[in-house]
Amino acid sequence: MAKKISRNTFTTENSPSIMSFASIVGEKEGQGPLGSCFDRIEVDSHFGQETWEKAESELQKQTVELAMKKASLKPSDIDYIFSGDLINQCIGTTYGLRDLNIPFLGLYGACSTMAEGLLLSSLLTDSGLGGKIAAATSSHFSTAERQFRFPLSYGGQRTPSAQWTCTASGAVVLSPEGNAPYVRAVSIGSIVDLGITDANNMGAAMAPAAASTIKKYFDDTGFKPDDFDYIVTGDLGLVGSKLLNELLLKDNIDISNKHKDCGALIFDPEEQDTHAGGSGCGCSASVLCGYFLPKVQTGEIKEMIFAATGALMSPTASQQGESIPSISHLVHISHSI
Amino acid sequence: MAKKISRNTFTTENSPSIMSFASIVGEKEGQGPLGSCFDRIEVDSHFGQETWEKAESELQKQTVELAMKKASLKPSDIDYIFSGDLINQCIGTTYGLRDLNIPFLGLYGACSTMAEGLLLSSLLTDSGLGGKIAAATSSHFSTAERQFRFPLSYGGQRTPSAQWTCTASGAVVLSPEGNAPYVRAVSIGSIVDLGITDANNMGAAMAPAAASTIKKYFDDTGFKPDDFDYIVTGDLGLVGSKLLNELLLKDNIDISNKHKDCGALIFDPEEQDTHAGGSGCGCSASVLCGYFLPKVQTGEIKEMIFAATGALMSPTASQQGESIPSISHLVHISHSI
Repeated sequence: MAKKISRNTFTTENSPSIMSFASIVGEKEGQGPLGSCFDRIEVDSHFGQETWEKAESELQKQTVELAMKKASLKPSDIDYIFSGDLINQCIGTTYGLRDLNIPFLGLYGACSTMAEGLLLSSLLTDSGLGGKIAAATSSHFSTAERQFRFPLSYGGQRTPSAQWTCTASGAVVLSPEGNAPYVRAVSIGSIVDLGITDANNMGAAMAPAAASTIKKYFDDTGFKPDDFDYIVTGDLGLVGSKLLNELLLKDNIDISNKHKDCGALIFDPEEQDTHAGGSGCGCSASVLCGYFLPKVQTGEIKEMIFAATGALMSPTASQQGESIPSISHLVHISHSI
Repeated sequence: MAKKISRNTFTTENSPSIMSFASIVGEKEGQGPLGSCFDRIEVDSHFGQETWEKAESELQKQTVELAMKKASLKPSDIDYIFSGDLINQCIGTTYGLRDLNIPFLGLYGACSTMAEGLLLSSLLTDSGLGGKIAAATSSHFSTAERQFRFPLSYGGQRTPSAQWTCTASGAVVLSPEGNAPYVRAVSIGSIVDLGITDANNMGAAMAPAAASTIKKYFDDTGFKPDDFDYIVTGDLGLVGSKLLNELLLKDNIDISNKHKDCGALIFDPEEQDTHAGGSGCGCSASVLCGYFLPKVQTGEIKEMIFAATGALMSPTASQQGESIPSISHLVHISHSI
């Protein structure tokens, strides 16, 4: 049974197993430095569907189905699933999972969704409240672009700090028993808003949330950066990653030789013209499931922190002059119990 | 510690206490049949803010603050809070709760959000993972109208089956110990879609989800309608309520003399021109917190089911010809442990 060790941090007693994980990405993500890591690269950005939104639903559905297939599970074997995405009213998720008939708990955590789902499914699995619990999320460049930025055909210039929303999805299945990777602890983040108003600089808006959650986790547990092989953030990108390191250094926490950011890893910014890096719920979800979890499974990585971040604004809020509130949830993943 | 009795249904061992609850509504809701039940009626539909979205954030913030105040709690006494709403990217919630500095888990369950938050906070409270956990949600007529329907000034005609999004919010605080109301059991719903495509008839789209969840709960637990004083749905309204009763009768479950629907209760359809009734996340949340929970507290209600429903579509999905997937989560609330 999970144990509460502070207001918002919990250790697991039986270290739930991430018994299966899967990632599917689009063509551009497949051409990036991590291309060989993903389970599948889909060159049809429509995923066989008529609209971008239906494409994202199909992407997420296929990723959840693949995570089940890799563990020889059927939808009826999954007790319930946590998921959400960036599209208005989370229709990437709701239409994607509709036909699976798995009890469903909808999340909205923007790009922190994978960490939020993993956190909640870990707590419930470790408390005996699920035999198999799944968590998933997705994003699609084209659904995000037209909803948050401009019509694709507009061909607008992107600012240097802008990030590229990944066409990607990741899904995991948690089980009370199984092999590595294991979830050792989780920490729920608080909303942090330092007043950044530039929606083309979300990395800077989200870095303070990641810094706050990581520092709080070290304070709560006594762990320090050297206890980890990697401290992984979601999609701070190049701008936000630099800021995260600076913010933590002010508190005398040096993560510089441990830190990796999924948004900075997934693309080659020079070759792929992705400016400050990747973003979107599917960015950190696919990099976690495609790149990091296999290394934790084999023991190449012994201990890692996964702290995905979410920017909790909307186009309407930005148009009304609002700054960008952000959040980061943390999951501590280990090779050994 | 909560106990899993089926794939998706859980009983609580220590019956977590809904130690505090609060409701704030707008002027029209205050003029309805339940007006005297709510903690506060705000005649300024802007809640002192410049935009409708900021008004909804202020409404939700004030409601959470009121739920804390009624139990003499400060934000720092709440371990974490579950919340979400209907506005794109849930900004009613994220901007509303931003300044409270309470660890935050964002939900998207459309109008089922209050049941989803109550369900998760009950499971975690009963498993020793929270001293005080809050759950909240909100909706605002004007944010919903311009996002889902037409600009307010357009003055469009409403169809007979249309519902009126409530300007309303409800918030609860759960505690492992305390007085009635208690949460005895919860059940996670699955997505149900019988092919309704009319976004002005959401009650009909959501009724099958409520029927499915309620029937499953009876099957899982052996409870029957006569074991309850009330079986309460969220916002099926007049059209959806009739359909719910018909659907359950096909399975020989007669809830007709036990069923109440928050959307049907909150307005007088003749006097207030609200057609099929109220809707919105805040509808069932405010009616639960304003009308039902006080009666469970005093013992006037001994046993009730709260099964809020959510329509998981978006305007984009409707424009693409999609039908409306729906969900209903269930919470069994009692006067006695």
